[in-house]
Amino acid sequence: MTNHNWMVVEESFEPERIAHYETVFTQGNGFLGTRGSFEEYYPGKNNSTFAHGVFDDVAVSFTELANLPDWTELFVDLDGETFSLVSGEVLGYRRSLDLKDGLLVREVRWKSPQGKVTDLTFSRFISRANERLCMQKLEILPQNYSCKVTLRAGLDGAASNLDLKHWDSVDQREEGKNFVLSLKTKATNIKLKMSQTLCCSDERAAHSYWNVFNHPTQVIESNLKERVKITVWKAVVIEVTPFKQELSAGTLVNLDDVQWDTELETHRKLWRVDWQHSDVVIEGDDEAQLAMRASIYHLLIVGPRHSERVNIGAKTLSGQGYRGHSFWDTEIFMLPFFTYTNPTIGRNLLSYRFHNLPGAMEKAAKNGFEGAQYPWESAADGREVTPSWVPYHKDPTQLVRIWCGDIEIHISSDIAYAVLQYWKATGDERFLVERGAEIVLQTARFWASRLEWTETEKRYEIKNVIGPDENHDRIDNNAYTNYMVRWHLKTAASLYAWLKAQHPAEFLPLAERLSMTDEQVSEWTRKAEQIYLAFDEKSGMIEQFDGYFSLKTLDMQVFAGRTDSIQGILGVEGAAQTQTLKQPDVLMLMYLHPDLFNLEIQKHNFDYYTPRTDLEYGSSLGPSIQAIMATRLGDMQNAYKNFMRAAQADLKDVRGNAGDGIHGASAGGLWQVAVFGFAGLKIEDQGWSVDPKLPDGWTRLAFKFWYHGKEESVDIRAKDVK
Amino acid sequence: MTNHNWMVVEESFEPERIAHYETVFTQGNGFLGTRGSFEEYYPGKNNSTFAHGVFDDVAVSFTELANLPDWTELFVDLDGETFSLVSGEVLGYRRSLDLKDGLLVREVRWKSPQGKVTDLTFSRFISRANERLCMQKLEILPQNYSCKVTLRAGLDGAASNLDLKHWDSVDQREEGKNFVLSLKTKATNIKLKMSQTLCCSDERAAHSYWNVFNHPTQVIESNLKERVKITVWKAVVIEVTPFKQELSAGTLVNLDDVQWDTELETHRKLWRVDWQHSDVVIEGDDEAQLAMRASIYHLLIVGPRHSERVNIGAKTLSGQGYRGHSFWDTEIFMLPFFTYTNPTIGRNLLSYRFHNLPGAMEKAAKNGFEGAQYPWESAADGREVTPSWVPYHKDPTQLVRIWCGDIEIHISSDIAYAVLQYWKATGDERFLVERGAEIVLQTARFWASRLEWTETEKRYEIKNVIGPDENHDRIDNNAYTNYMVRWHLKTAASLYAWLKAQHPAEFLPLAERLSMTDEQVSEWTRKAEQIYLAFDEKSGMIEQFDGYFSLKTLDMQVFAGRTDSIQGILGVEGAAQTQTLKQPDVLMLMYLHPDLFNLEIQKHNFDYYTPRTDLEYGSSLGPSIQAIMATRLGDMQNAYKNFMRAAQADLKDVRGNAGDGIHGASAGGLWQVAVFGFAGLKIEDQGWSVDPKLPDGWTRLAFKFWYHGKEESVDIRAKDVK
Repeated sequence: MTNHNWMVVEESFEPERIAHYETVFTQGNGFLGTRGSFEEYYPGKNNSTFAHGVFDDVAVSFTELANLPDWTELFVDLDGETFSLVSGEVLGYRRSLDLKDGLLVREVRWKSPQGKVTDLTFSRFISRANERLCMQKLEILPQNYSCKVTLRAGLDGAASNLDLKHWDSVDQREEGKNFVLSLKTKATNIKLKMSQTLCCSDERAAHSYWNVFNHPTQVIESNLKERVKITVWKAVVIEVTPFKQELSAGTLVNLDDVQWDTELETHRKLWRVDWQHSDVVIEGDDEAQLAMRASIYHLLIVGPRHSERVNIGAKTLSGQGYRGHSFWDTEIFMLPFFTYTNPTIGRNLLSYRFHNLPGAMEKAAKNGFEGAQYPWESAADGREVTPSWVPYHKDPTQLVRIWCGDIEIHISSDIAYAVLQYWKATGDERFLVERGAEIVLQTARFWASRLEWTETEKRYEIKNVIGPDENHDRIDNNAYTNYMVRWHLKTAASLYAWLKAQHPAEFLPLAERLSMTDEQVSEWTRKAEQIYLAFDEKSGMIEQFDGYFSLKTLDMQVFAGRTDSIQGILGVEGAAQTQTLKQPDVLMLMYLHPDLFNLEIQKHNFDYYTPRTDLEYGSSLGPSIQAIMATRLGDMQNAYKNFMRAAQADLKDVRGNAGDGIHGASAGGLWQVAVFGFAGLKIEDQGWSVDPKLPDGWTRLAFKFWYHGKEESVDIRAKDVK
Repeated sequence: MTNHNWMVVEESFEPERIAHYETVFTQGNGFLGTRGSFEEYYPGKNNSTFAHGVFDDVAVSFTELANLPDWTELFVDLDGETFSLVSGEVLGYRRSLDLKDGLLVREVRWKSPQGKVTDLTFSRFISRANERLCMQKLEILPQNYSCKVTLRAGLDGAASNLDLKHWDSVDQREEGKNFVLSLKTKATNIKLKMSQTLCCSDERAAHSYWNVFNHPTQVIESNLKERVKITVWKAVVIEVTPFKQELSAGTLVNLDDVQWDTELETHRKLWRVDWQHSDVVIEGDDEAQLAMRASIYHLLIVGPRHSERVNIGAKTLSGQGYRGHSFWDTEIFMLPFFTYTNPTIGRNLLSYRFHNLPGAMEKAAKNGFEGAQYPWESAADGREVTPSWVPYHKDPTQLVRIWCGDIEIHISSDIAYAVLQYWKATGDERFLVERGAEIVLQTARFWASRLEWTETEKRYEIKNVIGPDENHDRIDNNAYTNYMVRWHLKTAASLYAWLKAQHPAEFLPLAERLSMTDEQVSEWTRKAEQIYLAFDEKSGMIEQFDGYFSLKTLDMQVFAGRTDSIQGILGVEGAAQTQTLKQPDVLMLMYLHPDLFNLEIQKHNFDYYTPRTDLEYGSSLGPSIQAIMATRLGDMQNAYKNFMRAAQADLKDVRGNAGDGIHGASAGGLWQVAVFGFAGLKIEDQGWSVDPKLPDGWTRLAFKFWYHGKEESVDIRAKDVK
């Protein structure tokens, strides 16, 4: 493989973009994620290393991933002058992330205040081969001087999430050439042990250990000679065991045996295999190709390979946004990528929901319902962790009420949908029988109890909810929700019957354990038929929720040039009084259920809702869905525009908030646009098919996916597409 | 002076009381305050050093005093074994705070896990002579071994308030034998520079500097010989310059010139002078004597001597409670001590309110009123900083609405009251003319606009407020508030007339600047006469607020043995439905205005309200006021019981929350019980008088106070009291 369209590069140092690049240059291995922060101190840097499942309590917002001590810390003192981009002069700068293997390299030519010119090359990776291992290398080449050099590499136990500390000291000690720092989380009592070794190419270098409380540090002192390179490298092993979780599948490492070159080689081999299965090749559009690979890269580094007790946060492991909590972003946006290219990870993610059924049942019971109601935001143990209030970003002394944890309930159907989609793609019947069915049935049971009978209309309604479009909360009969629930109840009833007929040995104990009867299930079918489904026969229009059509239409052209969402500009109350959508809602429904309405109706609704949707600064979940629907309806210009919005959300930071972390749903959505949109992949009972429509200029679109245990290839050439 | 009744002693180490003793052993000098935490790490220790005025932002609660790096850090490694009360065996332990000079000494005989027995004596003080200087000494005496010893003393820039960090790194460097750590607060950009030197009695000891990022550390290595003592001592200079404030009045210190013995000597001299003016001698009751001195000590170490831009937080500088915010606790509870024994500090505190008139005017304007409305909670610049919501302590994911910042408005009159009290005691006419008057007039103006005319009753009312008793919020016509406002408006009108007549040169520009006219002021008098004042002629009862009498009476005997407040037990809503008071409210009014009602009426209300007041676990402001009123009414048993409640709030931690910080109002209240209660000191137009009533067993009560620039002595012997 060449580097073409594989390298994300920062060509010069722009201090104001430091947060953006920290996110973009995040590295990880499905267990750990580390932002692309500098090794040395820089004002405003926001280094973080998160590990799946390592949550600690936080007031009001329940829980958050606890930032681990920064394993990348490395200070360079050149005869008393400490390398820093704040002082001296940056004569050269280039940072690159190789998506092929996740190696991050920063090359700096730096002139110290006293005139020493030095080339420094920092490289690092988080081992794909061993989930516990992080490695780092620094090459120093003095250009115009010789002097003493001191290298300081510590582990700072005062790591914090922005400013909030989560760790208490347990122990720190020297062990041979290494040292160990032991900590535990303040509230959840999760044990963490980090071990470090620091090596140098200069065999005469002096090694010291500075036993500073909570910031033990290894030090190397050596002598630099003009034009002679020296190399130091570091290995850090991170052992952490979250409560009730079988994480840290990596083998125990003997730090004394670790070598940079051999570890990097093994790491690269595994990455090569990952890409063989996961790459989406786009020819004729370099920007799209690079963005597609960056999205896949960010999914590959966060998908949990060895645990079925964790999920992926909305901002992956790449930033503090949403505190590591998981949303429907996983099932509807990210999961398809895993289900189709790495079904084991897909299964792990769905198993997380299975294991957290008790929390979902507790939530349902607490709200007076039956079955399982999944939390809108989910963390370590599947309890609802959506904060009811959050500080208002424009004035943090004020609070804003967040209703999602109370009433954004479509997630229970989204998860059921994902279970069925996983099954359709993989044919993994064992999963469906042993775990998936219980998810679908228990959530169906929730819906059956949640539906509200309206006697006057003789129908079931679902009032006081939030749909995918969060600009409008506390609304009645959200079309997306109501249609999903009908599908859900019917599907659950069929699944029940299928289980009973095909897998009686598993069915009987399950039905008994869940106290589930034929009568109960036939009631689901009856109720499903009586759910109110908005649809105007005459116009073919689906009203997003009761009363939506009578809201005022906003001419979004008036706000051209804005850099904030319509909700940000008009305020929560203001935006709610207009028809402006945060993301497609009715179109989302049509995407997930293509057979519900004919293309004419879909087109009609598409034309109506598109100009009303804040695709630029609304939800980052919007553009990919919009792009797929536009492709389906043949509007390739709109499709490509929205594909690029999703593609640029992180790489170009077009929404202005990439610094908070990768938009995981947008990354997953981008893959779906290529596969389900442009390639038109469709899984049917008899097999799969494609129906390609490529954007202008694309000469090729190729990818692989797993279908029923066999890896399939799709390779579309523009010349072959009609 | 002997040590009798001057030493606060902890005789043995009880880990569960660590927070309590940290508070009790707080040291300070009117600028800095440092909790009595251990020098070495101990799980759960909550070290803090706060400096007046050094605030930084915090979400929802606006602002808090930022914890400075711990200047006391000192680790002792005995040939690889680190001294810690967690490991090994504590063979002997004694800690004492000498109230005479604020020297804190901890003596430990410790047996290491490997059997080394060592006597360690830690001593420290915060210089009374130089507000920037902190000093510490450690003597080590090995009892049964000789070995290498390593002493590590760092300054940790990751200092945090509980878990929240407030400091960003600026710089750290070695300077000769010292090092300097420079930081700045994250939001308010306050610069901090801490310099440290570390010395050793062993001249052959090796000194190193470990330049660990954000935790620079000095290290001494020496050899211990069995039964030979070595001594190390440390000096830390703290320079900090809050925004717009002329703090840090101490002279710049040259660390190279500092010596433990000479600094301690100077320090002691000044403390001796402080006590000459401030001591309250109680004979015949050792516990009362010690508690009285401890209270005075905690006021002396927090009263700002050199700044009129800072105030005292409710928990002084001794803990995180209330985030360093100031309340009426200062003016009504703590200020009298300063006004009478150290009028310069009294003047500084009132000047803080004067300088913050702009913030108070902003608050009034924002609420649609005229003049100045002081914030309920106040910090750096006098803005309102009461959080509207706080996490519920029993479930921090839930929030509790706090109304005090909106409607606990009596504070504006409390401040005016304190201005007049200061004037009456000191005769400081310059202050009154130049600053005090403006406070009184601008707050009167607020009240004139705040009063609500009730046409049906033909009277002014004040609705939707909180009185001193916060168990009942959003109530109408709180008696305390309404009576205070009448007094306030009348006093302001008199003051206006007096100023005009006596100080025309100052009056004219002031009246012009404030656009204040005779008409406006005569309206104050008219309105004052029409304010509704609850008083039932027949019963002599004052209803605390509209409808109070019809609330249900709670038999507090039912809750005997409780360890929580009635509000904590019944909940906010529950307690509000009963007559239970958090603290005396009507009695508070009678305390401040003894001439409003005759003794019979006072007795009547006392008898009614006393059994309804949660003096044990309600507000810590209650017992002292209760004690004074009981004394006035001759109920010496009740008086003494409540005096002791206040006396034991911190020393004995009878309320269970001393760990959060000293109850500053209780400390100031205790002084008032002795002086205004037991001694019955009264300031009248013609001079002062006492009217002593001593508790059983007290043989003597003696104190000094300043009256119109002259220091007066009171020395009461029980045998002379009728």
